Amino acid sequence: MAIMTTSSLTFQPVLDRIAAEIEKTPERGRPADYIPALAACDPRRFGMAVAEPDGTVYGVGDWRQPFSAQSITKVFTLALDLAREGDALWEHVGREPSGNPFNSLVQLEYENGIPRNPFINAGALVVTDRLQTQTGDAAETLLAFLRAESGNDELTINERVAASESAHGDRNAALGHFMASYGNIGNPVPVLLNQYFRQCSVEASCADLALATGFLARHGIRADGTRLLSSSQSKQVNAIMLTCGTYDAAGDFAYRVGLPGKSGVGGGIIAVVPGHCTLCVWSPGLDERGNSVSGVAALDRFTTLTGLSVF
Amino acid sequence: MAIMTTSSLTFQPVLDRIAAEIEKTPERGRPADYIPALAACDPRRFGMAVAEPDGTVYGVGDWRQPFSAQSITKVFTLALDLAREGDALWEHVGREPSGNPFNSLVQLEYENGIPRNPFINAGALVVTDRLQTQTGDAAETLLAFLRAESGNDELTINERVAASESAHGDRNAALGHFMASYGNIGNPVPVLLNQYFRQCSVEASCADLALATGFLARHGIRADGTRLLSSSQSKQVNAIMLTCGTYDAAGDFAYRVGLPGKSGVGGGIIAVVPGHCTLCVWSPGLDERGNSVSGVAALDRFTTLTGLSVF
Amino acid sequence: MAIMTTSSLTFQPVLDRIAAEIEKTPERGRPADYIPALAACDPRRFGMAVAEPDGTVYGVGDWRQPFSAQSITKVFTLALDLAREGDALWEHVGREPSGNPFNSLVQLEYENGIPRNPFINAGALVVTDRLQTQTGDAAETLLAFLRAESGNDELTINERVAASESAHGDRNAALGHFMASYGNIGNPVPVLLNQYFRQCSVEASCADLALATGFLARHGIRADGTRLLSSSQSKQVNAIMLTCGTYDAAGDFAYRVGLPGKSGVGGGIIAVVPGHCTLCVWSPGLDERGNSVSGVAALDRFTTLTGLSVF
Amino acid sequence: MAIMTTSSLTFQPVLDRIAAEIEKTPERGRPADYIPALAACDPRRFGMAVAEPDGTVYGVGDWRQPFSAQSITKVFTLALDLAREGDALWEHVGREPSGNPFNSLVQLEYENGIPRNPFINAGALVVTDRLQTQTGDAAETLLAFLRAESGNDELTINERVAASESAHGDRNAALGHFMASYGNIGNPVPVLLNQYFRQCSVEASCADLALATGFLARHGIRADGTRLLSSSQSKQVNAIMLTCGTYDAAGDFAYRVGLPGKSGVGGGIIAVVPGHCTLCVWSPGLDERGNSVSGVAALDRFTTLTGLSVF
Repeated sequence: MAIMTTSSLTFQPVLDRIAAEIEKTPERGRPADYIPALAACDPRRFGMAVAEPDGTVYGVGDWRQPFSAQSITKVFTLALDLAREGDALWEHVGREPSGNPFNSLVQLEYENGIPRNPFINAGALVVTDRLQTQTGDAAETLLAFLRAESGNDELTINERVAASESAHGDRNAALGHFMASYGNIGNPVPVLLNQYFRQCSVEASCADLALATGFLARHGIRADGTRLLSSSQSKQVNAIMLTCGTYDAAGDFAYRVGLPGKSGVGGGIIAVVPGHCTLCVWSPGLDERGNSVSGVAALDRFTTLTGLSVF
Repeated sequence: MAIMTTSSLTFQPVLDRIAAEIEKTPERGRPADYIPALAACDPRRFGMAVAEPDGTVYGVGDWRQPFSAQSITKVFTLALDLAREGDALWEHVGREPSGNPFNSLVQLEYENGIPRNPFINAGALVVTDRLQTQTGDAAETLLAFLRAESGNDELTINERVAASESAHGDRNAALGHFMASYGNIGNPVPVLLNQYFRQCSVEASCADLALATGFLARHGIRADGTRLLSSSQSKQVNAIMLTCGTYDAAGDFAYRVGLPGKSGVGGGIIAVVPGHCTLCVWSPGLDERGNSVSGVAALDRFTTLTGLSVF
Repeated sequence: MAIMTTSSLTFQPVLDRIAAEIEKTPERGRPADYIPALAACDPRRFGMAVAEPDGTVYGVGDWRQPFSAQSITKVFTLALDLAREGDALWEHVGREPSGNPFNSLVQLEYENGIPRNPFINAGALVVTDRLQTQTGDAAETLLAFLRAESGNDELTINERVAASESAHGDRNAALGHFMASYGNIGNPVPVLLNQYFRQCSVEASCADLALATGFLARHGIRADGTRLLSSSQSKQVNAIMLTCGTYDAAGDFAYRVGLPGKSGVGGGIIAVVPGHCTLCVWSPGLDERGNSVSGVAALDRFTTLTGLSVF
Repeated sequence: MAIMTTSSLTFQPVLDRIAAEIEKTPERGRPADYIPALAACDPRRFGMAVAEPDGTVYGVGDWRQPFSAQSITKVFTLALDLAREGDALWEHVGREPSGNPFNSLVQLEYENGIPRNPFINAGALVVTDRLQTQTGDAAETLLAFLRAESGNDELTINERVAASESAHGDRNAALGHFMASYGNIGNPVPVLLNQYFRQCSVEASCADLALATGFLARHGIRADGTRLLSSSQSKQVNAIMLTCGTYDAAGDFAYRVGLPGKSGVGGGIIAVVPGHCTLCVWSPGLDERGNSVSGVAALDRFTTLTGLSVF
């Protein structure tokens, strides 16, 4: 691994170059269309931020524009629950790739209501359910954490998006009831769904999310120097991001980008270079597997230009 | 990532300490029992080797004892075919985790005869089929490569094991014919199976295999300084090893060990610390997912003691 | 087919003989235990009734004891909906056997929310949803029909059982929301579930249900001489009962009994000898596939003793 | 069941009327195209025969034209093996509908190499394997039986078709090896495949096959008055035909035709009216599920016109 020495590095020229290249790209994908709030986004918007472990942030384009974090939040609720209950979580959710595009319910049935990993919807529902039990309000716990790590108190939940998610939430309701039928959900399913849809509807910018991900580059240490996760747990979250973080494209993402990452259907992707920096990129146009087209392209260019890859 | 500076490092004390710890472990797993040659192995045997990019090798225990490489060879045939036909390979095999324990045929049917990745049996058959087409003798091509990289001309194919694999090869024959029915096999199925069973029956030691894996720590450069793979291809092979290298335990392996690795039912595992070193560990007792119990434990200890992990 | 001439036939001696044989059988199965109301049933209870097309009923044992009809009601809601909307129903539910024990959700996902047939839970939910849309109260429509056909105005819905079904209804809730996510449910899922659980909780006796099934022996004609189904539709319902009426044991039931039949987890089974008679048998002990052990045995004996079989 | 009294019946006018109607039908389907010998058939050809239990045969159109019997032979090998080993067969193959279009290998894997029923390819391979073990030459045993029952010594195996089947036989080879890997095949897979492909390549006419099916209308009695199957076994074969005889369209066939039947990709279908008659219809154009378009239509008309249906 060719690692640039931090002292000689400023990420700004790299970000500028990537933004210029993306600007020229004709194919930008299509925004998620299952709820109106996401469908309205312009697929040509693009922002990218890099945060160093000390809190220095570099950015380009729409890097200060809040967007719908969606599944990116799954990384934070996972860390917040792991910090509270540790390995007990793993009796309720696995950590293996899910591996097939139609598997959400198939595998869940085959494996008796234990989802494959915390980043498929079923697994994220389990994590939120457990965090809800631990804290009494999973979505507010998440929001407080993101505000503290990003230093941005304006960061909020878009209640209109949450209501829209709920109105289109039959698939998640099915997953919740299905796991409840196996005894793997502790809260009433409607309570869980409400927390889950609110969690997905957090809005934050690339700068906010790159900063909030910092604990994964700092081996578990929060922005204020306190410890959220052990070094080993931090390494574990990175491993799960690498193997399961980008839906059914985890192998392809590892192959092209080579970093732990997590995408959301809002068009955001966070990524980690352990020990070095964290990234967040946003562009609302998605590919057919639900990952931001320009986001993946930008991260691909970033690792190529800097040589920063775990492989 | 806490990286030890190479200059101050010698791996010998770490290996000695790991071997001493493993020695005291009561639970060693059970050897593969589907063919007699493997079933006869003593599960308490243990060897481990680390090779540095310059060819220096450290070892402990049975590190010079040849064993049946089995699925470890899939890494080399993948690299050898990629070096010859490049991205054309990916039209015939995917690179996503397979994700479910019973999927070999299920997924193959669902995905029209295109296996999920080169490390499940179906995918390895496709790679061997293509290498056979490229070279006229896939198994001999592999053998020549392993001899050259390890500097060990004694390294050989155990024909008795190959015959035994063939006699118990109905499942692989089913996979081969099934993919042929989709037009995804170029050679006659019996020819392919013969090559495949011979490839699996290569015998090599931890020292041999750690050395032969060196090109993946050297970003694609062979022992003699010539290039086998581009830097990008080398990174890609590492990514596939991390996400798909240990059967249905890839997530768990990434979580515990945090290195690209590939296991075989002979009890061996190879692993890569990109830019730093390659490892091979051997102990014939397997866990229920087919990975060496002591091998995984030894690699887990290695990354903990040295801090060498990609996360 | 050896057919007894109706004139010389009285079913009473056959029923008496069967009851005496069943009485001596040691193995009676175990009652359904997912809700307390069913678990409390004594597996040694047994009743059987035969109704002739003209309304004559023969019975033995507990043939006048009301029991929980459960899935037997699926035959009646199917007929009631078919009578109203005809073939339009078949755009929303199939009529092929489901064929595998774990398929409820697997196949539903594979086939985009269209259940395989009206007798698996998913299919019955669709039928109830459509009957609810047609009538505004599916459960009351069913109840009125059963009362009219059986001539028993005491026949009722056990609301305590319905509440218990609802409290243990996560799996059905999952199915409902899942099909709703494919647009295959017209009513709000909670409304549908309430109707469905009430429908399952109808209590009726063997005599009641044998009489209520009479229209299927009379080629679609109700007890009062009016037509419910066309002759062709009546034949179709019989065909679906034969191929799909006994969960994953339809083949075995056809093989042993050779009559269209439909079982419920309350321990009841109805069966039809087209043109000749209808039967209902009840004994709460189930086999591992959810069919009444003594009920299947009694029907098997009935067809053997009388030669009345469709094959 | 409205049963015509045999004394007043001659089937000739019904057959003539059906043939006239089919003649006017524009949509005739497409011949199977996986082997050239079948693809060359004219989809407008049509023949139909009815055989009474006493051997009287009525026919229309191409009813004396030999065609490729294909999967229709599965009924005869099933009966021939059942006659020899009885219920022991059912430890190796089930008798439940397979229920899903993609299941050949999926279900086989899920159910550990035991095929669902004798009429899917996997199940037919098991039956042929067992008949081969019983007789030393399954295909010749079949041929001798068909010649004896039809009284036609010209009836033969088309070796050119058998060779063509073999050349396109990768899917069946996969099934054979796959079941062998579970220990469910007794003969060497190549021997089994050779027998199976020869069995499929029997050529016979509608008249031949209607007569050869006669034992199923005579409750197990062969043409010469000797018993092949017990009355109960005969009923069982009819039950399996009804629930599993027409690929993934068994429910639809039962719904439309209402008779035990078995189709083949050569365009033939046999059917049974227990106690009354047997039928064979042939027209090479298939629907998308592999059943003869005009064949199903003709049987549908036959049961409508005569009232002969098991429902």
